[in-house]
Amino acid sequence: MRKDKPKYKQIIDAAVIVIAENGYHQAQVSKIAKQAGVADGTIYLYFKNKEDILISVFQEKMGVFVSKLEQIIARDLTASSKLGLMIESHFELLASDIHLAIVTQLELRQSNPELRTKINDVLREYLKLMDQILVKGMEDGEFDAKMDIRLARQMVFGTMDETITTWVMNDHKYDLIELAPKVQRLLLKGMQA
Amino acid sequence: MRKDKPKYKQIIDAAVIVIAENGYHQAQVSKIAKQAGVADGTIYLYFKNKEDILISVFQEKMGVFVSKLEQIIARDLTASSKLGLMIESHFELLASDIHLAIVTQLELRQSNPELRTKINDVLREYLKLMDQILVKGMEDGEFDAKMDIRLARQMVFGTMDETITTWVMNDHKYDLIELAPKVQRLLLKGMQA
Ligand SMILES: CCCCCCCCCCCCCCCCCC(=O)SCCNC(=O)CCNC(=O)[C@H](O)C(C)(C)COP(=O)(O)OP(=O)(O)OC[C@H]1O[C@@H](n2cnc3c(N)ncnc32)[C@H](O)[C@@H]1OP(=O)(O)O
Ligand SMILES: CCCCCCCCCCCCCCCCCC(=O)SCCNC(=O)CCNC(=O)[C@H](O)C(C)(C)COP(=O)(O)OP(=O)(O)OC[C@H]1O[C@@H](n2cnc3c(N)ncnc32)[C@H](O)[C@@H]1OP(=O)(O)O
Repeated sequence: MRKDKPKYKQIIDAAVIVIAENGYHQAQVSKIAKQAGVADGTIYLYFKNKEDILISVFQEKMGVFVSKLEQIIARDLTASSKLGLMIESHFELLASDIHLAIVTQLELRQSNPELRTKINDVLREYLKLMDQILVKGMEDGEFDAKMDIRLARQMVFGTMDETITTWVMNDHKYDLIELAPKVQRLLLKGMQA
Repeated sequence: MRKDKPKYKQIIDAAVIVIAENGYHQAQVSKIAKQAGVADGTIYLYFKNKEDILISVFQEKMGVFVSKLEQIIARDLTASSKLGLMIESHFELLASDIHLAIVTQLELRQSNPELRTKINDVLREYLKLMDQILVKGMEDGEFDAKMDIRLARQMVFGTMDETITTWVMNDHKYDLIELAPKVQRLLLKGMQA
């Protein structure tokens, strides 16, 4: 698999930096190659084109995040605690790497329909796990059993997403991780039974 | 003022359609001129460039929306009712014009820093009015007086925004306006005193 090849991760990490610093449209493959310290041709051994790089970056980082979330879900905790840990993990990941935060909040918002569908297919993996937490909370009587799960998911994701974009647009000058418990409290109140 | 000139509105309305159908990057000024039924040169009597057209479209539509919101705020109603009417007006505006919804949810999400700052300056007008409703609710004891107003605003806006983007991505096949009272209920519970 291409992922096991030595330079795959090196190119992915370089792409995050180049896309964050230049914007997706100005992030030429040659710039990514230079940042990764590989020849331009090497990139094409791993990726079809720039679009494939963007999607692969997102898949790769989402894969790691999803594994972490699966571990949280497997633990013997209430749905409220799982939701809190999910919010905290999401905030921690993006607060720890501003390049990743810029790519996630600004550069992944592409309007081109084919590209957008591929991006949202990756996002779906995360939202499916979020739904598992919400369903458990509804079954266990912690969350309102009559709430519309799609709207609740859109509220949870939308609130986190807007909080993080505002933090990015304000040059990440305040502590994002500190906001996680406050966001959890606001959202839990909205969903409680 | 340029706004009073006869072809201004005609060009704005054409731009919404052309940008929605082609994407902002593929929406050449000549396409907009053609859709508006004016000569290419006429566009430049009103607008500096394509960026100026995009910002003007947003300012123009936001101006109308903000007037409506100011009327709602001036009424003798509880903050909860005002919030409900705000959500309903926001959903109604976008549900009534799918081109406007596509431009708002997909094409206004530009990552170029100068352009994004101009877009977010227009958005700020709306968010300031939303804050007025939230502050009134906190003062009147309807909303939690200790809540962080910025986070509450990010929750309210983020939830509406995610709900609408999902509706656009699902080819607007369900009724968005029907969702407004459910969204209001979820959000009010989160903020209640
Ligand atoms: C065709 C057009 C159709 C139009 C239809 C018309 C109307 C219909 C509905 C409109 C929908 C609008 C959609 C717009 C879409 C385009 C934009 C997006 O992508 S939106 C989706 C993505 N979202 C975005 O892109 C929005 C990103 N947000 C922003 O860019 C800004 O928040 C702002 C410009 C909106 C307001 O800025 P500002 O007035 O400055 O107010 P702030 O509160 O931000 O900051 C005040 C101070 O508080 C600090 N602080 C803030 N939060 C926190 C916190 N939680 N903890 C601690 N601190 C916090 C902050 O650092 C600052 O400190 P300092 O500097 O004073 O020391
Ligand atoms: C450098 C990378 C760093 C990575 C870091 C890794 C991880 C950290 C955190 C990740 C953050 C992710 C950020 C991602 C940013 C990119 C994307 C955005 O812009 S996100 C911000 C903007 N947001 C977006 O772009 C997300 C837009 N959403 C979507 O595109 C889709 O919801 C989906 C693809 C996500 C899931 O699709 P699907 O699995 O199909 O599930 P649905 O529920 O949608 O639909 C199921 C059925 O229900 C219907 N229905 C739905 N809602 C309602 C309702 N309220 N009432 C009634 N009906 C409703 C619907 O019509 C459908 O009906 P049918 O067809 O079965 O008849």
